Amino acid sequence: MPTACVFSKARTDMTFAVTPQSLNFDQPLQLKGGGVLSAYQLHYETYGRLNAKRDNAVLICHALNASHHVAGYHEGQPKSTGWWDNMVGPGKPVDTDRFFVIGVNNPGSCFGSTGPMHTNPQTQQVYGADFPVVTVEDWVTAQARLLDALGIEQLAAVMGGSLGGMQALSWSLQYPERIRHAVVIASAPNLNAENIAFNEVARRAITTDPDFHGGDFYAHGVVPKRGLRIARMLGHITYLSDDVMNTKFGRALQHGDAFKYSTQDIEFQIESYLRYQGDKFSEYFDANTYLLITRALDYFDPASAHQGNLTAALAAATAKFLLVSFTTDWRFAPSRSREMVQALVANQRDVSYAEIDAPHGHDAFLLDDPRYLKVVKSYFDGIQTSAAEAA
Amino acid sequence: MPTACVFSKARTDMTFAVTPQSLNFDQPLQLKGGGVLSAYQLHYETYGRLNAKRDNAVLICHALNASHHVAGYHEGQPKSTGWWDNMVGPGKPVDTDRFFVIGVNNPGSCFGSTGPMHTNPQTQQVYGADFPVVTVEDWVTAQARLLDALGIEQLAAVMGGSLGGMQALSWSLQYPERIRHAVVIASAPNLNAENIAFNEVARRAITTDPDFHGGDFYAHGVVPKRGLRIARMLGHITYLSDDVMNTKFGRALQHGDAFKYSTQDIEFQIESYLRYQGDKFSEYFDANTYLLITRALDYFDPASAHQGNLTAALAAATAKFLLVSFTTDWRFAPSRSREMVQALVANQRDVSYAEIDAPHGHDAFLLDDPRYLKVVKSYFDGIQTSAAEAA
Repeated sequence: MPTACVFSKARTDMTFAVTPQSLNFDQPLQLKGGGVLSAYQLHYETYGRLNAKRDNAVLICHALNASHHVAGYHEGQPKSTGWWDNMVGPGKPVDTDRFFVIGVNNPGSCFGSTGPMHTNPQTQQVYGADFPVVTVEDWVTAQARLLDALGIEQLAAVMGGSLGGMQALSWSLQYPERIRHAVVIASAPNLNAENIAFNEVARRAITTDPDFHGGDFYAHGVVPKRGLRIARMLGHITYLSDDVMNTKFGRALQHGDAFKYSTQDIEFQIESYLRYQGDKFSEYFDANTYLLITRALDYFDPASAHQGNLTAALAAATAKFLLVSFTTDWRFAPSRSREMVQALVANQRDVSYAEIDAPHGHDAFLLDDPRYLKVVKSYFDGIQTSAAEAA
Repeated sequence: MPTACVFSKARTDMTFAVTPQSLNFDQPLQLKGGGVLSAYQLHYETYGRLNAKRDNAVLICHALNASHHVAGYHEGQPKSTGWWDNMVGPGKPVDTDRFFVIGVNNPGSCFGSTGPMHTNPQTQQVYGADFPVVTVEDWVTAQARLLDALGIEQLAAVMGGSLGGMQALSWSLQYPERIRHAVVIASAPNLNAENIAFNEVARRAITTDPDFHGGDFYAHGVVPKRGLRIARMLGHITYLSDDVMNTKFGRALQHGDAFKYSTQDIEFQIESYLRYQGDKFSEYFDANTYLLITRALDYFDPASAHQGNLTAALAAATAKFLLVSFTTDWRFAPSRSREMVQALVANQRDVSYAEIDAPHGHDAFLLDDPRYLKVVKSYFDGIQTSAAEAA
């Protein structure tokens, strides 16, 4: 068997080992909501090599339930594949043979960067409910500081899906001169009332769990798992399309082919699936982080400073854009992406837009639809870097 | 002012007084799920007069959060207007000047008929979690026995929206000879995976509330209000369309025009609205009833006894049908009504179908869309009774 073939297989199926890194920041981060992080740590990972001109860096922004661990696996943990490993890696759409890719965990999250479970250096107490409200704009500022530390003046591209797409959009407005391309996938220029409503139900499930203790549950040695489970079950429904739920689960029963006739036991496979997802999530996700990140989603609305005029808001963007949406995504529907496309076109910006007819709902942005991956690959293939194809 | 005008105004705006009635049934009700109600009481109301030939009776079936109190108001309670008062009354689409209309509270509900908060006559204990699982078919059986007691052999029509529509459909299959017309509004021939998933999240919110006590909370003197609130908030989102939520609430703030930047306080009006709905609901609705009724929704699936073939399932129906759906109803989408229409047409049944382009989502079936009310009125105007127009 030719070596090249084995190598190619190893790269795409088995991916590569990666080691998380961290950096401490002592310059206070003044937050949009009025709070301040006096000192903080960011966890991040990088893939590929920064070229000599430092113009091949790509920043990947994560959504609610993800982290800096975008691609590859952690040594000794073969199942620890990154959340966008199908998108980022050698020979993949965001090709780490060409690009230097950075994943960073946002402050307030629960995967290593400073968050509500950490100690507030000013009080020496665990933050808990006192962790300051963070916004998409704050995350972008923190990410920019990480780039400063890494010696990267300008990104070839910033990319994200869902809430990550909001960060990519915000980059184009906060630091237009520091990005050449913005890739905004399955996202929206703000949440609509229904999005906010679902977030609020999830938050209320968490905050009314007696184990939440107003957000200071760490001190009580408990976790508001009941609330986290409900939040995740609900979130999961909104990530999937009606179609894919019917195809994958339909009305299939969990036990044999007859009902048990019980109000509390599992009857349908979809119930078992959701309970499993909720249980798993409640084992590792932080309740305060859930509140913080859903609030960051709620607050994001660049048009609000322009009387709701998105075209006026996006006039500040100078990057070239790729936007992608998925037809069955009812959380961030294609119409929301089209709003952004239209506002960018009205500003005579360079915009590519793909609306993928995929059955998987919002989750599609994480999946392996070949048309989707091809669109992203083609776009990144067209991004100029000084050492293209020869990193 | 002419008397007729005053009378007309009084009838439509101020509606009429009505007194609930009840009947005890000693013949055990054997339930589809294997349980039995050895004795039970049904609360019901009637409007209009039964004619001499007893052929002008219309049964109205209620959905999750409604009752026998369909129309009119209760003496001394001017705000106690029935849930379908815009549909049923003198001169209204279901005209009580022509029809004798019956509303009945289903067993397992919490508005007077025997339910989980009542005493099991066999054990002298409150039913609580031991209340047997009830199905749409069981409710129809109980309703048929009420008609027996009222001396009504055949209904001019049976009518319901949502879960009530499922009961109307089930009537056409269980007692085809006892109904001439079935009016099935904003309904479905079964729940899909997403519907079941939302029900399951609501149920888990209730059953994991520490105050639920496995369903026996009555004995503990508490009510699982946290769970009920979450269930209702979530349900409410699914009753409304995306459109109407954006029109009614959008991103409007609750306090002034600036964010408070808080993860736990209310920021948006939609949050306040949902919390209010949840609070109100948790004050009066029974937690076990919520489980029982959502399970009845889950279980209903007349096609399941015919290998999923709805056409085969509906072959038993001989009634004439009116079906109505609403374009923005994503809980029971028009496609679900069309499935029923197609199955009935395939059986060469007499079917009228209206798809109303209304913005209000599932809730539209309770609202005053003039086209909708006109469709129902026209249909009922065409229903023959022996004493038409002269009750």
